[in-house]
Amino acid sequence: MKDNYYIGVDIGGTNTKYGLVNEKGEIIFSGSFNTKLYKNPKDLASDIYYDYIKKSNEQHIKASGIGIGAPNGNFYSGCIEFAPNLNWGENIPIVHIFSEIFQLPAILTNDANAAAIGEKFFGAAKEMKDFVVLTIGTGLGSGIFANGNIIHGKNGYAGELGHTTIAESNRKCSCGRIGCLETYVSSRGILQTYKEKCASDVRETVPDDMTTKEIYNLALRGDEIAIETFKTTSEVLGRSLANLILILDPEAIFLFGGIANAHPILIPTITEVINNNVLSLFKDKVKILPSALINKNAAILGSTALFYLKDN
Amino acid sequence: MKDNYYIGVDIGGTNTKYGLVNEKGEIIFSGSFNTKLYKNPKDLASDIYYDYIKKSNEQHIKASGIGIGAPNGNFYSGCIEFAPNLNWGENIPIVHIFSEIFQLPAILTNDANAAAIGEKFFGAAKEMKDFVVLTIGTGLGSGIFANGNIIHGKNGYAGELGHTTIAESNRKCSCGRIGCLETYVSSRGILQTYKEKCASDVRETVPDDMTTKEIYNLALRGDEIAIETFKTTSEVLGRSLANLILILDPEAIFLFGGIANAHPILIPTITEVINNNVLSLFKDKVKILPSALINKNAAILGSTALFYLKDN
Repeated sequence: MKDNYYIGVDIGGTNTKYGLVNEKGEIIFSGSFNTKLYKNPKDLASDIYYDYIKKSNEQHIKASGIGIGAPNGNFYSGCIEFAPNLNWGENIPIVHIFSEIFQLPAILTNDANAAAIGEKFFGAAKEMKDFVVLTIGTGLGSGIFANGNIIHGKNGYAGELGHTTIAESNRKCSCGRIGCLETYVSSRGILQTYKEKCASDVRETVPDDMTTKEIYNLALRGDEIAIETFKTTSEVLGRSLANLILILDPEAIFLFGGIANAHPILIPTITEVINNNVLSLFKDKVKILPSALINKNAAILGSTALFYLKDN
Repeated sequence: MKDNYYIGVDIGGTNTKYGLVNEKGEIIFSGSFNTKLYKNPKDLASDIYYDYIKKSNEQHIKASGIGIGAPNGNFYSGCIEFAPNLNWGENIPIVHIFSEIFQLPAILTNDANAAAIGEKFFGAAKEMKDFVVLTIGTGLGSGIFANGNIIHGKNGYAGELGHTTIAESNRKCSCGRIGCLETYVSSRGILQTYKEKCASDVRETVPDDMTTKEIYNLALRGDEIAIETFKTTSEVLGRSLANLILILDPEAIFLFGGIANAHPILIPTITEVINNNVLSLFKDKVKILPSALINKNAAILGSTALFYLKDN
């Protein structure tokens, strides 16, 4: 039996990575590019193409299609729309560009959806039909599966959980609005919570470039303010997830992204807060789990799995 | 070509209605029963059966199956679970009971899902794949379509939008919890809002049995407190719907149920509040509409359409 191979491309503001992936989710070969060096996306696609052709010829393996994951990637239009960290214009016809250069079918979605699709085909959600993947990093994204399929929504914008507004926040969000969940549940949000707690504790000023990882390490060493920071983050997220669960009744919610590495300290409080905030019918029904793809390139894997989803 | 007919049963705490429905959503014949007179659901199912057989023989039409809509009806288990207004026990195996008596396939869902399925097959959502139907009456339910299919969730509990908690409410809900959306957006909630506004206006006491319809009629006649009551209701609902839209990106949200008759006064404020509370990408994208089945028996129609959904 002949294996199927697809190229997965993960376009980010800093780096763009690609990989050739087989049906088991194994990356056969890959490459990485500095996104900021490219003034237009055609040049980036060309360089990926030449790298792919070289490695493809060496290994005598050809791809059947290209899946692309990108922030603000729109499944329907095939365009990256208004991506704040890419300087290629408002509407980048990325599917058109890649399919022309590679002469292969191309398909696009946003990075959170790609992570959820990756979880479904190569991660811990293989047997699940209804689940949510949260991508917690610089921002907060979500990819939602219901009835075994990803929810894109009417316009391809579904999953903007990070920009739902919450009572707890008066903070200004990167989107320009006030009170988004992301202002608490993201690297920026966690740093701000930590800073505010330090300020009320009259600690010395917290450096602006302090990372969530550093705060997490402090928490692991018993630093009370760091522990409280993750508690606040988990409580705020837990209350939002309780509402999400009442709407979607998912089997599991997975934590993905850099901040998901802090899952041992996040998940117990999130679970407790959910159980305290749902109808009794829902208690202990939803599993809160770390993604099985944490620290793997889920966006590369997930974007190749777009082709399996399409075939379903 | 031979037409298909299905029986739709709408089980409510006060009345149970049934109808024989054709593929166009026309009710060929129907019957109504006083639910409270039945000490157990088997006797109710038997009486519906005898009524159906009589009318079916008269008109020489036979049904191919029975769809049932009921509060807390669970699609997966075929049971009515913990329904507060039915005194038949905690778990009523209603699918088993009806299919045994009628010797026909039976299928169950909750009343909000039935309304949404009715909207899809016989209402204003025929061409839509992603939409939400809100059933606003004694409580607040929701039926959610994504990718052209109803979302039941893992356990059959999806759509409990009425029990998501909101910052605006400190009111006690019928579910025992504090702050559910339903404490504002329901007949009970609207009456309480009206009472509170009257109390601060030092009006005479509002009767406990005042109906939403009466308050709506006052609003239509220019009563400022009644107008303010619907404004508050619309604002609270609009803020919740903004969050729902960010998650699901639906094409439309339909208002159904007794209170949906007040849509001319509700929809302008709901729409304005949504536009003020979503990401700019989502502005003016979602239509807020009255259901095309208001004041029709959508639960009867929708429960027969469960069979069309199954065939999809």
